[in-house]
Amino acid sequence: MTQTYQVIGTRPIRHDGVDKVTGRALYGADFNVTGLLHGRILRSPHAHAKIKKIDVTKALAVPGVEAIVTSADLPDPGDRMADLGEGAVKLRDLSGNCLARGKAFYKGQAVAAVAAINAHIAEEACKLIVVEYELLPCVTDVVKAMQPGAPILHDDLVTESMAGPAEKKPTNIAKHLQYKLGDVAKGFAEASVVIERTFNTATVHQGYIEPHNASALWNADGTLTIWCSTQGSFTVRAQVAALLQMPVSRIKVVPMEIGGGFGGKIRVYLEPVAAILSKKSGKPVKVLMDRASVFEATGPTPGSHIRVKVGADKSGKITAAEAYLAYEAGAFPGSPIWAGCVCIFSCYDIANLHIDGYDVCVNKPATSAYRAPGATNAAMAMETVIDEICEKLKLDPLEFRIKNASKEGSRRADGPAFPRIGGVETLQAAKNHPHYTAPLAQGVNAAYPRGRGVAAGFWFNIGLKSSVSANVNADGTVSLVEGSTDIGGTRTSVAMQLAETLGITAEAVKPMVADTDAVGYTDVTGGSRVTYATGWAAVEAAKDIQRQMIDKVATLWKMKPEELEYKTGGVVSRTDAAKRMTFQEIAAETHKHAGIIVGRGQVDPPWPGGAFAVNIVDVEVDPDTGKVNILRFTAVQDCGKAIHPSYVEGQIQGGSVQGIGWALNEEYVYNDKGVMANASFLDYRMPTSLDLPMIDAVIVEVPDPLHPYGVRGVGEVPIVPPCGAIANAIYQAVGVRMHELPMSPPRVCKAIAARESPPK
Amino acid sequence: MTQTYQVIGTRPIRHDGVDKVTGRALYGADFNVTGLLHGRILRSPHAHAKIKKIDVTKALAVPGVEAIVTSADLPDPGDRMADLGEGAVKLRDLSGNCLARGKAFYKGQAVAAVAAINAHIAEEACKLIVVEYELLPCVTDVVKAMQPGAPILHDDLVTESMAGPAEKKPTNIAKHLQYKLGDVAKGFAEASVVIERTFNTATVHQGYIEPHNASALWNADGTLTIWCSTQGSFTVRAQVAALLQMPVSRIKVVPMEIGGGFGGKIRVYLEPVAAILSKKSGKPVKVLMDRASVFEATGPTPGSHIRVKVGADKSGKITAAEAYLAYEAGAFPGSPIWAGCVCIFSCYDIANLHIDGYDVCVNKPATSAYRAPGATNAAMAMETVIDEICEKLKLDPLEFRIKNASKEGSRRADGPAFPRIGGVETLQAAKNHPHYTAPLAQGVNAAYPRGRGVAAGFWFNIGLKSSVSANVNADGTVSLVEGSTDIGGTRTSVAMQLAETLGITAEAVKPMVADTDAVGYTDVTGGSRVTYATGWAAVEAAKDIQRQMIDKVATLWKMKPEELEYKTGGVVSRTDAAKRMTFQEIAAETHKHAGIIVGRGQVDPPWPGGAFAVNIVDVEVDPDTGKVNILRFTAVQDCGKAIHPSYVEGQIQGGSVQGIGWALNEEYVYNDKGVMANASFLDYRMPTSLDLPMIDAVIVEVPDPLHPYGVRGVGEVPIVPPCGAIANAIYQAVGVRMHELPMSPPRVCKAIAARESPPK
Repeated sequence: MTQTYQVIGTRPIRHDGVDKVTGRALYGADFNVTGLLHGRILRSPHAHAKIKKIDVTKALAVPGVEAIVTSADLPDPGDRMADLGEGAVKLRDLSGNCLARGKAFYKGQAVAAVAAINAHIAEEACKLIVVEYELLPCVTDVVKAMQPGAPILHDDLVTESMAGPAEKKPTNIAKHLQYKLGDVAKGFAEASVVIERTFNTATVHQGYIEPHNASALWNADGTLTIWCSTQGSFTVRAQVAALLQMPVSRIKVVPMEIGGGFGGKIRVYLEPVAAILSKKSGKPVKVLMDRASVFEATGPTPGSHIRVKVGADKSGKITAAEAYLAYEAGAFPGSPIWAGCVCIFSCYDIANLHIDGYDVCVNKPATSAYRAPGATNAAMAMETVIDEICEKLKLDPLEFRIKNASKEGSRRADGPAFPRIGGVETLQAAKNHPHYTAPLAQGVNAAYPRGRGVAAGFWFNIGLKSSVSANVNADGTVSLVEGSTDIGGTRTSVAMQLAETLGITAEAVKPMVADTDAVGYTDVTGGSRVTYATGWAAVEAAKDIQRQMIDKVATLWKMKPEELEYKTGGVVSRTDAAKRMTFQEIAAETHKHAGIIVGRGQVDPPWPGGAFAVNIVDVEVDPDTGKVNILRFTAVQDCGKAIHPSYVEGQIQGGSVQGIGWALNEEYVYNDKGVMANASFLDYRMPTSLDLPMIDAVIVEVPDPLHPYGVRGVGEVPIVPPCGAIANAIYQAVGVRMHELPMSPPRVCKAIAARESPPK
Repeated sequence: MTQTYQVIGTRPIRHDGVDKVTGRALYGADFNVTGLLHGRILRSPHAHAKIKKIDVTKALAVPGVEAIVTSADLPDPGDRMADLGEGAVKLRDLSGNCLARGKAFYKGQAVAAVAAINAHIAEEACKLIVVEYELLPCVTDVVKAMQPGAPILHDDLVTESMAGPAEKKPTNIAKHLQYKLGDVAKGFAEASVVIERTFNTATVHQGYIEPHNASALWNADGTLTIWCSTQGSFTVRAQVAALLQMPVSRIKVVPMEIGGGFGGKIRVYLEPVAAILSKKSGKPVKVLMDRASVFEATGPTPGSHIRVKVGADKSGKITAAEAYLAYEAGAFPGSPIWAGCVCIFSCYDIANLHIDGYDVCVNKPATSAYRAPGATNAAMAMETVIDEICEKLKLDPLEFRIKNASKEGSRRADGPAFPRIGGVETLQAAKNHPHYTAPLAQGVNAAYPRGRGVAAGFWFNIGLKSSVSANVNADGTVSLVEGSTDIGGTRTSVAMQLAETLGITAEAVKPMVADTDAVGYTDVTGGSRVTYATGWAAVEAAKDIQRQMIDKVATLWKMKPEELEYKTGGVVSRTDAAKRMTFQEIAAETHKHAGIIVGRGQVDPPWPGGAFAVNIVDVEVDPDTGKVNILRFTAVQDCGKAIHPSYVEGQIQGGSVQGIGWALNEEYVYNDKGVMANASFLDYRMPTSLDLPMIDAVIVEVPDPLHPYGVRGVGEVPIVPPCGAIANAIYQAVGVRMHELPMSPPRVCKAIAARESPPK
């Protein structure tokens, strides 16, 4: 693609930048209104328990308490299923996750909520609610949960059996997926090397800085307004409507600024609770989570148990691959097992495949999306096995990956053939990067062993629905109204596409994120879709403006619209290039005489081709403590077309850092009672800038052929390769193959010790 | 028009009703935000004075004071003219009206403003600002202001003269308009009765319940957000942009709910001041007016001096009419003299006309629009003269008016011919109304003399630009986004037109008033235009939705769009009426599969035909005090098509009541220093419900042929006839012709006394 752009590919200052750095931007917790009540949630102290009775008498008697709610205040959702932004869910599960209905499935699950005139009273009142529990044994490990005799979470989850109802047994396995391609046995028979390894990865959290929050006002006319930080205002609207059994149009969701989401702010937790507290009290209610609740009671990404078996022939061609993936759903069915299955082998064009995937309930919080959900666990397994094969075959690991890389026409594990993708180009760019052939980066201690690893990753990205409207102002600017909440600078990346199409500057576009009443339906900010789909909607809105401007100018010039075209920032005569009216002139003119111009864009585009990423990482390992230091980190990624390179680099860097945290430190540590032992940022150790080198982000541009500007989506795939790349680097440094995440100091120490004195 | 409607003409509950009656609706003064400063204005104590020096040193030193501004903080507007929603104005005047520049032209004019951490400190600091004035003589009466030797307000206002610059003399006359039609001398020669009378009317205020307010945040990136109660958010944006010399797109105006405007909330007063206080302090600033400031320093409607001469032949045909109108502009040029000239004779088809109109500066606040601005003063004069002619000719006053009434093709004084209008129908309806032939209504005291009067009135109504967008929701409803601030129930009257066009219910439309970033440009709420023009935009948006729905259904049914049509709430096959998909089904379907539907409507329609109103009023007069009681009041009005009859009746009743207040009590009382003596609701006596009978509103429907649903605009004309009708009723009761407004007890007493002992 040799097309040149005026705006796309430049790096204008983000439109919301000043508000963010000066503290003016309003986040959910900043919400305030006269008469606001403060809500607090009472949570289950037990990981698995029947709720026999809830007595709120004493709590209600506290002066200043205005309402207390339990699941009895939510409509009975029955057995209905609904797709509300994260795939099909049982409404009963979604409802019970907001306020437990008869049973608590994890420690921290919401049981009741209090609204009071201040937060202190609400907290005190929570303590006075008497809940009678009947304790049940719990299971917090995916493997144990699948074993016979494991504590069963849901009585209505039964094994699927052909033998009739009598043969069905309670189970924690909510779903079994299977994908087959070719003939695996034949494939393995053709292999000269076969490696099979088993992996366990811990539950990790998105770790967004801003805790969940929701404010609600249930008005006397039965309409409901919700203010919250969410990835999808329309998704919140749909979920709350389903849970409270009211039409979507009676709900308005006002998206506040969002302090990070990464997939974890799609499902509702507090919104329906704030709503019914407001309904019961007749006043606006704000509910905030503390950090411990965020860890214990929102949606982390699943711990997993994965077995991968890969065979390759002498030439380095993969002949067969087999995977068994069991993902912890947490309390309710719904792990990203499908995505894990789709992604685990998708970097490679493999003729013979067999994949089994299991979605397994355990007594942990219900898992949620987290940046390429399910793909990182899978890539950790596959990429370290690939590394071992390359070692065995004495092949360069990037050469091997290039040889086997998926390309246009390759089939994805779940069936569809890839369109034009940038997997090969990304691997090539990594191989050509100076880092790949440079000496190992210098470490903290020259005595520490060092090593280099590489790994690749795939994520499919999505399309879905987006709406924008674009109001042309008299001063030659455009007010752009979007439904996509802005997490990563998308106000600007969307505005730039409108600007490019109209031939105006990025600064001449004034983007805003509107509430659910003020803009057309727009799906969730997730799946790396906003710059792709909402950007596309902005292009459509710009074209709508172009058409209207041509019509207005045709009227002014007494010409036919067909005699005119929109070109480089204005309307020109097709026959006389000197006859021209700029965008700014038309904008001013229409405000005086010729009527107002508003563009609209609505899209529901096909999914893009998917994104590929490759990491090169240098590490050193402190052999005494097992601590791994990242010395140099290069993240290469196909971005389709990078609209705003700085924000693309930011996404690559952010995703890489989260992958590094997942690789080295982050994990939910549970005791045998199913209680998380490290529910704070002090004990749940995320990497800080002091732990990391600058991440070198390398943008590869293989434009997506579907999108008007070749956008492919960039937000998620950078988290996929880091765990595998770091594991491979650790192996190069200290000669141990890590099969567990995180590769924290104790685990690395233990592995080194096992290498030095292998078990007899 | 025999067309039947499903929604139009019904009386659904207004969408914002619950918010208004429960106190949830947020008005300007309700605005609050963290760190908000409170602004107060220091105002001139003198009606006319040079400002020699302003010393803010002491005020700035008060702890808690964060900024002080004077006109030095506003850009110098130079000599630029601008049309910013109320006709062309000198920017210097608009700027000086916000903060006096070198001279104060009226008592109460803003001179400086303080922002402080609370209102008390701001008030105290205002008192510490030392302003050195040089007092000038003042003139507050339009007749005196036009006399030679009168104090001159503006040195650059000079008489227009053909004799060259040397002959030009300073004047207070800002404008002289003249309209001529036919041959007046010939017309009067043909008359058998000629009546000539002179009238004086007082300055009156719109008396909206909510005082002016403005909050502003000047952000670090140079963008400005303003929250205020205004009739036109885009108008505020344009005015502030012009005054602060910044592009409109750097300003966002968020319209809060508005507690009445009636024309008085179009011009900015506090908005630019709040803005520069925020710029200087770096913090958000809220500025509120108290009631005295509202009276003294906003824009009332002009006092006037009017002479009318009308001649009629024996048959009762008006043969000629002459008018001289001098309207007080207040401190700066810009009275509604043009409208007074256009309206004074427009109820009647008169072949020979001569009208002179004068716009005259006096040392009072700059006048502003007030419900059919300028027309009530004029109608008071014309309608009482007509009454006198009818008396002389012994003709029924409604018969006389019907005989002379303007109709389609009649020429308005300023030139244009009327399209289809409802003047005759309105007069006929009044004549046929039971009130007209009923015995006089019973009074408070059977001994008081009673009388009945009638009068007619005309107002032209306007068109201008409106935008809406309409987002189709999955539940078969539409979120309607409007740019028109809602003063009189227009959320509902606009929503009903969308609903009618789509064949859905009014309740299925959820209207909202958006800020200036979120919706296309929309002109001011005024000129009775919103239900007309914004309603028309809603019809266009609905048609846009219809087109898209046809396209979507065509795709679903694999048919051509031409084979389908939108009919009675859904898309149907033109050939097979049973093949049908309802609006609700299409809405649900598009959210699942077929993409999102958003309709947009932008209009800039021609002005409608104009509105006519007739009043019948019974009064009694307390002969001892001169107090006039309204016993029965019937207001008949052509409404084109009444979209929501209740709100049309509300407009008729509200306008009538304001007219009654103007007729009987309201006036600015000035002392000889130019100080208003009654700047409070206690002393400025507006009628309350206890003063009034229920106003009987009679809707006549002569649909406007331009508008898709025949809307004509209803908000203003009801204020036009009351003063004349009441004057005529007083004459019937006590035999005195009132030539002054208000016809307050002292004036009526004086007139009765003069009748009883006429001057020798």
